[in-house]
Amino acid sequence: MSETRIGLLGFGTVGSAVHRLLGESAEAIERVTGEPVVVAGALVRDPSRRRPAPDGLLTTDFARLRDDPSISVVAEVMGGIEPTRTYLLELMAAGKSVVSANKQLLARHGEELFAEAERRGVQLRFEASVCAAIPVVKVLRESMIVTGVHRIDGIVNGTTNFILTRMVSAGDTYAAALHEAQELGYAEADPTEDVTGADAAAKIAILASIAFHTRVRTDEVEHVGIDGLDLVDVRHASALGYQVKLIASAMQVGDAVCARVHPCLLDADHPLASVQGAFNAVMLRGSSIREVILEGPGAGGEETATAVIGDLLAVIGTSGTGFLQHDGYYRELRRLPLDELRSPFYLRFEVDDEPGVLAQVAQALAAESVSVAQVVQHSGRGVHIVILTHTAREGSVRAAARAVAGLGFSRSAPVALPVLVRSA
Amino acid sequence: MSETRIGLLGFGTVGSAVHRLLGESAEAIERVTGEPVVVAGALVRDPSRRRPAPDGLLTTDFARLRDDPSISVVAEVMGGIEPTRTYLLELMAAGKSVVSANKQLLARHGEELFAEAERRGVQLRFEASVCAAIPVVKVLRESMIVTGVHRIDGIVNGTTNFILTRMVSAGDTYAAALHEAQELGYAEADPTEDVTGADAAAKIAILASIAFHTRVRTDEVEHVGIDGLDLVDVRHASALGYQVKLIASAMQVGDAVCARVHPCLLDADHPLASVQGAFNAVMLRGSSIREVILEGPGAGGEETATAVIGDLLAVIGTSGTGFLQHDGYYRELRRLPLDELRSPFYLRFEVDDEPGVLAQVAQALAAESVSVAQVVQHSGRGVHIVILTHTAREGSVRAAARAVAGLGFSRSAPVALPVLVRSA
Repeated sequence: MSETRIGLLGFGTVGSAVHRLLGESAEAIERVTGEPVVVAGALVRDPSRRRPAPDGLLTTDFARLRDDPSISVVAEVMGGIEPTRTYLLELMAAGKSVVSANKQLLARHGEELFAEAERRGVQLRFEASVCAAIPVVKVLRESMIVTGVHRIDGIVNGTTNFILTRMVSAGDTYAAALHEAQELGYAEADPTEDVTGADAAAKIAILASIAFHTRVRTDEVEHVGIDGLDLVDVRHASALGYQVKLIASAMQVGDAVCARVHPCLLDADHPLASVQGAFNAVMLRGSSIREVILEGPGAGGEETATAVIGDLLAVIGTSGTGFLQHDGYYRELRRLPLDELRSPFYLRFEVDDEPGVLAQVAQALAAESVSVAQVVQHSGRGVHIVILTHTAREGSVRAAARAVAGLGFSRSAPVALPVLVRSA
Repeated sequence: MSETRIGLLGFGTVGSAVHRLLGESAEAIERVTGEPVVVAGALVRDPSRRRPAPDGLLTTDFARLRDDPSISVVAEVMGGIEPTRTYLLELMAAGKSVVSANKQLLARHGEELFAEAERRGVQLRFEASVCAAIPVVKVLRESMIVTGVHRIDGIVNGTTNFILTRMVSAGDTYAAALHEAQELGYAEADPTEDVTGADAAAKIAILASIAFHTRVRTDEVEHVGIDGLDLVDVRHASALGYQVKLIASAMQVGDAVCARVHPCLLDADHPLASVQGAFNAVMLRGSSIREVILEGPGAGGEETATAVIGDLLAVIGTSGTGFLQHDGYYRELRRLPLDELRSPFYLRFEVDDEPGVLAQVAQALAAESVSVAQVVQHSGRGVHIVILTHTAREGSVRAAARAVAGLGFSRSAPVALPVLVRSA
């Protein structure tokens, strides 16, 4: 049976997650691509300093990967500018497609790298370089071609958004919030790249380049960070109903473009205002789409690895007849009975106003092991007993509601609506 | 010069928008695919009843499209089950890839259609069948393969979300809000499909099928709509801090799946709680991505057309070496001077507490034609004059701030932060 063999440059947090997820998702990958994807080798500088890997996987010899004709695509997750740039150029010259998670390399040397990809007829994909698990690069490059996207606004740096969220919610000063971000691992020991907006500048340069089909270089992106932001302005803004966020923006007006990074005030109903903590979000605006927003985790080893693998599979998949064409893509799976689902519930009982009703309702719930979190009794058009339950089995909640419906004081069919819980 | 020739089945709202956008975006398309994309013909039932089209474009003869070997891909935007199903099967048998916007056809006959695509080695893409301009199908099929997506929650019907938004914000009854939706064109004269959740059921069946790689049929999706929803429950929920939304959910637990549509309560901090009006949003949860949310317009002729074209270009692009490989992809564009950008601004001046200061600040702003929307004076750690301006030229705002900084009462450098406006 044939297989696709790939190479990895680097085997750190992201590289080892790529290797592990490819193994864990082997079945799903084969359903999509039609054949197994195997890591043929991973380049490291010093194998003894790396995490455990199968025998023979790690190598310090770049030429072993470059000159292996069985390797068709290589994922670069080693970071840095050199020798990374040289490696990618040599790999493409050897006819291999390349996937890169390297934001700084793309932003600084994208022109040279794309020219080489074009010359060699290979692919160069870079989803993981911006916003990790949020597929904004793919969406801009492949879904938004005719939408006339003329403006991008994004929260593309999780560290600064975490710090700003803390300044708003806990009233921390910038220094205190930064310290907390460092303790929790959201900020580096040297946070300069993040807090000055330099990281966001590289990202918006990449997004602007692909959205507007022009080269926007990092060094031309004016960036103001949050390192000079005073808590007092966050508070004044909050008093006026605004959130302060570090926004990376790019826009095209006629035949002119610009990109910048700067702290902005956002009205409470702005879609980016509700992006909390280390999350990222990007809003795309175009004449044919109005606005499309993508939100999710913008960092993390495993999150970044999913983006790298998405690109790898796109290279592999697009060299054939595209996705969804393979035997066994659709499996048979069992059905989950809805009664077994669990969530909190909203219940409303319209009842006669007589003594003992609440006790009987409570008893009906208790009989089905449904635990009550909150009770409110409304009088008006009939008496309404409104109950929020703790997480409960749906079948039990419905059985309890049916039991109450059968009692003499019930005036109408009980209403039972699930509460959608974020962490479910 | 070579060109890609495509066919259209249907030339209504979506079909004519596809034709128009392909023309308007011809340059951008050629930058991406390397060659022009030309509509070779569009099938209509009665050309006299259709909107204006170039001579010779419209045809009532399906065989003309099916048997034209120069047409490599056909977009189906005619709707309905038959003869649409037969047409698609015949097109694929003739070796053509197919793009469909037809949710009901996909949800009911997906199995047969995908089997035919696989047998013939052609592509069948269907982004436009779910949530119009939001590329959720592409993201699920191509970006989320190894992310272990195990749960999808979505607001996938704009009509019902508009009605619910009106019930919450204006206190309208269901009947009144439905009437308003019909007046504004958000709801059909016969709104049954939307308000009973049947439309959402077809969409979540499609999303569940591609997320979990299994067949989830529309007819097995239990759906409860909003047609039985009482305003009183929307109000009780609101009093408890919750929004009521019509949620389409699908989940996989082990080797079992389920999909359903039902009104749910959402906590205010839930990412789907803030989705207003006719917008759609889908939240994907997986072990490696935590949560990724996609939001945007879920309906509209032009919005749907962008999804159809995204699929067309994916078929065309993926038969070669993928995207971004073509001469002239990156153009040279002018740079927009940041000083010329316009937005409202937040200004904060720290000043001495002496008479006439506010007048001088106001004068400095007026001298640069910056108009004041709101002023708040804070006393505490120094006196702060906080100003929100109306939309103003950035260069003028900064010039006014510099002028104030030069006045004797200024205690520190003025702070000027742009306000990000949703409609900018």
